[in-house]
Amino acid sequence: MTINVDIERFKRQGFPEAVYCPGKTIQQILKITEKLYKTDAPVILTRADKNIYKNIKKKFKKAKYYPQARLIVIKEKKPASGKNYVAVVTAGTSDVPVAEECAITCETLGTKVVRIYDVGVAGVHRLFRYQKELTGADCVVVVAGMEGALPSIVGGLVSCPVIGVPTSIGYGSNFNGISALLTMLNSCSANVCCVNIDDGFGAGVIAHLIANR
Amino acid sequence: MTINVDIERFKRQGFPEAVYCPGKTIQQILKITEKLYKTDAPVILTRADKNIYKNIKKKFKKAKYYPQARLIVIKEKKPASGKNYVAVVTAGTSDVPVAEECAITCETLGTKVVRIYDVGVAGVHRLFRYQKELTGADCVVVVAGMEGALPSIVGGLVSCPVIGVPTSIGYGSNFNGISALLTMLNSCSANVCCVNIDDGFGAGVIAHLIANR
Amino acid sequence: MTINVDIERFKRQGFPEAVYCPGKTIQQILKITEKLYKTDAPVILTRADKNIYKNIKKKFKKAKYYPQARLIVIKEKKPASGKNYVAVVTAGTSDVPVAEECAITCETLGTKVVRIYDVGVAGVHRLFRYQKELTGADCVVVVAGMEGALPSIVGGLVSCPVIGVPTSIGYGSNFNGISALLTMLNSCSANVCCVNIDDGFGAGVIAHLIANR
Amino acid sequence: MTINVDIERFKRQGFPEAVYCPGKTIQQILKITEKLYKTDAPVILTRADKNIYKNIKKKFKKAKYYPQARLIVIKEKKPASGKNYVAVVTAGTSDVPVAEECAITCETLGTKVVRIYDVGVAGVHRLFRYQKELTGADCVVVVAGMEGALPSIVGGLVSCPVIGVPTSIGYGSNFNGISALLTMLNSCSANVCCVNIDDGFGAGVIAHLIANR
Amino acid sequence: MTINVDIERFKRQGFPEAVYCPGKTIQQILKITEKLYKTDAPVILTRADKNIYKNIKKKFKKAKYYPQARLIVIKEKKPASGKNYVAVVTAGTSDVPVAEECAITCETLGTKVVRIYDVGVAGVHRLFRYQKELTGADCVVVVAGMEGALPSIVGGLVSCPVIGVPTSIGYGSNFNGISALLTMLNSCSANVCCVNIDDGFGAGVIAHLIANR
Amino acid sequence: MTINVDIERFKRQGFPEAVYCPGKTIQQILKITEKLYKTDAPVILTRADKNIYKNIKKKFKKAKYYPQARLIVIKEKKPASGKNYVAVVTAGTSDVPVAEECAITCETLGTKVVRIYDVGVAGVHRLFRYQKELTGADCVVVVAGMEGALPSIVGGLVSCPVIGVPTSIGYGSNFNGISALLTMLNSCSANVCCVNIDDGFGAGVIAHLIANR
Amino acid sequence: MTINVDIERFKRQGFPEAVYCPGKTIQQILKITEKLYKTDAPVILTRADKNIYKNIKKKFKKAKYYPQARLIVIKEKKPASGKNYVAVVTAGTSDVPVAEECAITCETLGTKVVRIYDVGVAGVHRLFRYQKELTGADCVVVVAGMEGALPSIVGGLVSCPVIGVPTSIGYGSNFNGISALLTMLNSCSANVCCVNIDDGFGAGVIAHLIANR
Amino acid sequence: MTINVDIERFKRQGFPEAVYCPGKTIQQILKITEKLYKTDAPVILTRADKNIYKNIKKKFKKAKYYPQARLIVIKEKKPASGKNYVAVVTAGTSDVPVAEECAITCETLGTKVVRIYDVGVAGVHRLFRYQKELTGADCVVVVAGMEGALPSIVGGLVSCPVIGVPTSIGYGSNFNGISALLTMLNSCSANVCCVNIDDGFGAGVIAHLIANR
Repeated sequence: MTINVDIERFKRQGFPEAVYCPGKTIQQILKITEKLYKTDAPVILTRADKNIYKNIKKKFKKAKYYPQARLIVIKEKKPASGKNYVAVVTAGTSDVPVAEECAITCETLGTKVVRIYDVGVAGVHRLFRYQKELTGADCVVVVAGMEGALPSIVGGLVSCPVIGVPTSIGYGSNFNGISALLTMLNSCSANVCCVNIDDGFGAGVIAHLIANR
Repeated sequence: MTINVDIERFKRQGFPEAVYCPGKTIQQILKITEKLYKTDAPVILTRADKNIYKNIKKKFKKAKYYPQARLIVIKEKKPASGKNYVAVVTAGTSDVPVAEECAITCETLGTKVVRIYDVGVAGVHRLFRYQKELTGADCVVVVAGMEGALPSIVGGLVSCPVIGVPTSIGYGSNFNGISALLTMLNSCSANVCCVNIDDGFGAGVIAHLIANR
Repeated sequence: MTINVDIERFKRQGFPEAVYCPGKTIQQILKITEKLYKTDAPVILTRADKNIYKNIKKKFKKAKYYPQARLIVIKEKKPASGKNYVAVVTAGTSDVPVAEECAITCETLGTKVVRIYDVGVAGVHRLFRYQKELTGADCVVVVAGMEGALPSIVGGLVSCPVIGVPTSIGYGSNFNGISALLTMLNSCSANVCCVNIDDGFGAGVIAHLIANR
Repeated sequence: MTINVDIERFKRQGFPEAVYCPGKTIQQILKITEKLYKTDAPVILTRADKNIYKNIKKKFKKAKYYPQARLIVIKEKKPASGKNYVAVVTAGTSDVPVAEECAITCETLGTKVVRIYDVGVAGVHRLFRYQKELTGADCVVVVAGMEGALPSIVGGLVSCPVIGVPTSIGYGSNFNGISALLTMLNSCSANVCCVNIDDGFGAGVIAHLIANR
Repeated sequence: MTINVDIERFKRQGFPEAVYCPGKTIQQILKITEKLYKTDAPVILTRADKNIYKNIKKKFKKAKYYPQARLIVIKEKKPASGKNYVAVVTAGTSDVPVAEECAITCETLGTKVVRIYDVGVAGVHRLFRYQKELTGADCVVVVAGMEGALPSIVGGLVSCPVIGVPTSIGYGSNFNGISALLTMLNSCSANVCCVNIDDGFGAGVIAHLIANR
Repeated sequence: MTINVDIERFKRQGFPEAVYCPGKTIQQILKITEKLYKTDAPVILTRADKNIYKNIKKKFKKAKYYPQARLIVIKEKKPASGKNYVAVVTAGTSDVPVAEECAITCETLGTKVVRIYDVGVAGVHRLFRYQKELTGADCVVVVAGMEGALPSIVGGLVSCPVIGVPTSIGYGSNFNGISALLTMLNSCSANVCCVNIDDGFGAGVIAHLIANR
Repeated sequence: MTINVDIERFKRQGFPEAVYCPGKTIQQILKITEKLYKTDAPVILTRADKNIYKNIKKKFKKAKYYPQARLIVIKEKKPASGKNYVAVVTAGTSDVPVAEECAITCETLGTKVVRIYDVGVAGVHRLFRYQKELTGADCVVVVAGMEGALPSIVGGLVSCPVIGVPTSIGYGSNFNGISALLTMLNSCSANVCCVNIDDGFGAGVIAHLIANR
Repeated sequence: MTINVDIERFKRQGFPEAVYCPGKTIQQILKITEKLYKTDAPVILTRADKNIYKNIKKKFKKAKYYPQARLIVIKEKKPASGKNYVAVVTAGTSDVPVAEECAITCETLGTKVVRIYDVGVAGVHRLFRYQKELTGADCVVVVAGMEGALPSIVGGLVSCPVIGVPTSIGYGSNFNGISALLTMLNSCSANVCCVNIDDGFGAGVIAHLIANR
């Protein structure tokens, strides 16, 4: 079977094609990883379980696994030397895995990250302790499940773009993240945009691109 | 046509059957109003347009019309003498009509109201100016459209029940209020409950019942 | 990893931050529980399975587990001495777990509860046997799955606020509780408000706040 | 244009093809009506406005118009002589137009109807006044909007089939009748089935068929 | 725990309260079954798995298990002696379990059933072979998944009520039976009504009531 | 404003870019039409109202208007000389406008059409009268609203591809055509594919391409 | 149990009834397969797992299993000798199983297939490498998950019908394929039609019928 | 009535609070505009009709109206002198109004804009003519209705963030923009984020913030 990996994406766009693991066989994943490894771009595998990591590790000794973020990374970039950074914020502790997928993606691409976790709106005073870190950031990524209200609050405090990442954390009428997604799409803070539910990787790529403009 | 008005509701429950006007003919509305008028309860007509008011006014000289709230009221109660009050809060100016439907319902039933309008989350410092009014209330009703995040913030500040009223203000993926409704149902502030989209009347009844416990 | 537990919520609001267990590691749960335990508030863990309980029990000898309600409780309040009470009602036997989550939450916070279970609308005469218990309550919580019609009936009988809790019991076009949720949101009984599907904890908090006004 | 009217439906099935007016030109409606008129079946036009009636009346002098039900009827059957009857029940006054569409359809096909209107669940004692009429019926049609809970209550009282007709009366999360529809589909009363939102005609046909078995 | 079984339903309505098993403990199921067993009504447990049957069988020696239909039955009625019967039809072989739940419910209540399976619309000539059995029935129940078109066709052939039972058989945009459900609700055959997705029991009860009018 | 009309589409693909009128100003429509007119392709404007036609007619004397189909056509192709034809079928009379949009599109592109209208499944014998016309077609387009069952029946009769066109005809749980759309997507006849709700133009283009293979 | 297999479908329509395995017992599957095997048509079982294959293989020695496509095939047709072929295209590697179900269906029915895999829109230059294969095809099937944009691009390049097959590959607001499905239904390329989510078999049948016109 | 305008937003965040006109009275709009006018920020009114403009113009002589974009602007910023610019792209001519709302917002805030309109995917060669303008941009906003596929294609060509703006242009299963929205949320191009349906203003604010980093 021919595989048409987009090996020039990093050169063309500044970020590589990631290997989205679900629905692929180990053989397909290895084959795609090999092709990407030959380029000088970082290699990122998303939604990877332990078994995939075991197989990757055999062939690629430098592969690192981040189990909470479900990421495998090979050949990450060195951190940039400048002052630019992305703030990654979560509403709750349950949102941390998606936040880590975002933060590690940024770092793998060479962008610095400040993590601000567990500062949800039910006790909004917790957020205000981090006002300095927030207003100094070049881009803020806000990861939130349940009602997903945090990006709107953060959006009202900063002068940079805010990327909302709805998570599927919640139950009942949360509908696996729809509630948080709609909240972010309808934010009355005009500097809030959003990505797909649980899409920490996409948020990381966009935040990296914004912080390095 | 026989009409089975629930004329004992006020006595039994402390609030009257309201006349929900849409889908009813003027004749039906007049007939129901007459039956309710004979009891000693306040009479409230909801979602009433000017034409209905004109017809009601002919028969019931004391009828008052609140056009923004679309309410017609006959025989309202005197304000209670105690300290109890309901705070009615809105996120934006466009949410005011629903808030007024709630506030006037409370007042018609004899409960005092403090109005705090236009303090949405995109500039959340506006809300904090009213901290005293909020923490002193016996019940807070928060009326919000778009992403509907305000009840969660308010919920984290007060020690009384918070009733969220989603409004249909917004566009696109707001879906005529679904976005705000889901936000309120999924609130991470455990003291937030909610009513139907644009249901200022229902929120007013419940707030009245809570404030008079 | 820093955890920003809202340890002052009980003091500020009269109910504590609960530990919502899904999506958290045992380590995170223990760490948060420790922080909350140091305050003088009751500690409540929701949606906790047996394995979490086993781990909690090792460190907190006084922890109690309610398996049907999936609650772990440490340091509950003594029951209040007054006459106030919350009536917790279910439509069917399958709705009992959510009702218990609500009832135990109330009791943990110090509010008395009267349980009225299995009185659904297909045989509505069963409900009327409890008229006295219902009309004497300060707040009625009605827990119902399938079509969720019971809160509307109860709403028409009492003069206190009714909190509807839709459950995910049912199949097909029940859509995991959406049917019951919409029923409660659209109740023609104006004193009915509602919370998220299966949210016994939230209903318990609000009922406690109302009964202690 | 050829029109393939199903002119033998009355003979084959005991009820005629009705002319569903929306989306048809006056010319098409007249042509179809003519074809149906030549058979010995009653002719029924549904969702007909005044203008259609004016045009029909010119050609068919015996045509009757029921504006609330939006029905035009030509050549109705004589009422049956037996004891069988259909009870048509509504929750509110706003549901009456759909109920009338159902009742007049039954009567046009020769079945007797008992009307019980405005007995919704917020004051359920109103319903119990009609227990005799309900338990004596061969089929009960219950028409209800908003949360649509009435068919479940009625279903628990009678020993005949109950046909629920959800109406689009309501607002917000009623979603033009979806709320009432889901309630009826998920009824815990096993003898409740249902038809489309606002489908008084279909309910009338089925009730007629049941009452004449 | 008090259980409020509706033990007089069979006497009042002609069909018993069924024990819906999901969400109940074995203890609860046994307790309810005992209460129902003491009446002279048939006892029916729905959606029962093998393990429940094993436990029931220990106490109730005459219990019968229908694994495909997931029904347990104790004390079924004798078949009626008359000519009346219900035709139960399926579109495909995968719809048979729901059809059997319906057919066995009818038979348990004493109504005769004719089964016509696997006659879906993709080869509609198969249906026409059974025209006689269909037109002779007192009620036809049509069970269909995927697009659920069969009730409309059958509806056009017979002069009795047709009860559509949508099944969750299908994939993708079938949405676990929504596709078939909507088809049946929107049927252009006016004698088609419908019940919840996969609700063979409800269809059986209604068909029994119609056939015995 | 620059307009980038795809003027080579007819040459490249065998059908032209159509002018979809909604949301465009008269000026924009005229400008686009002029650009398309200069090619040797037929010009088709879809969803055009009378006012648009009046403006088009002033500049393009040969423009023809089909009001029922809401199409404006300039420079149609001559009918092909071969035997190939497309059968366009409707379930009801109300579906005819969409069917005409399809049929006229085919004819404008040079393909012959046989029209078979008003043969819906509630009286399916009407369809069988046209068996010969159906089995002789190179492609059958079936246009149906309400439950949209007709394409499945037709699909089981013919050996060519069947294109289902759901229409928005219906009410209530028809949801403006969703019911019919889902029916066609889930058809158990494997030769049925489908296009968007009310998309007669798209169905016409595809049918033309199939019939001319 | 009688099984009414449509054994003449191949003769009547040029493609056989397939055995859709989910929801059927092994016994039912064997019985249906036997009936179909006696005709001279190819036998195709869809969505078959290994266990079903093991059972089929015992009775039908020539049965072949395609595990990725989950197809079992007995008695496939010889490839046609002409130049006609279907191009089967995928956006990603994860879409290949559905594409193989389509391709093998075509080949089993005697139609040649050209496979073009992994050419999604995020690197659209990969698609243009295959322009010749695409423009030479008699029908193009495009299989795509996530946003499902590929059929629209391909639709703009070719002069034959394009069949879009949405897959359930994706997460979050992909909603198991709804996102891709809606994209294909709303394609601005007028020659794109579509089938159900993950319906490779249906797409294969239609493509075969088009390519052999 | 007190109005709590967020008059310091421009200073705090670099963009002003806009006046969202729907649901506000002329008096409210004037009052808010006056408050905002007193700051040194640009004043922007969104979704403003002609009547609102007429009233604004009386008081604010320098107000400009952009009818297609439905924007009123007072005190716009001078264009920045640097090379940075935002590319605003549309799929079709009908998407231009939303694109203009975005472009004029950018320009009002001082950011340069390059417009690339009518380059949708059905004729994707039109897009490639603008490759240089696209790859030189600091941020690309892509406005598209119907299936909304364009942002994914553009996303694969550039190395800057892409903001997708779904529009409500389309019909049927477009569901007023849901189709395009889901496409953009599920984009396989990782640099694509999105805003609410028809939210040209929000996209303009974010693009401005990115281009001026």
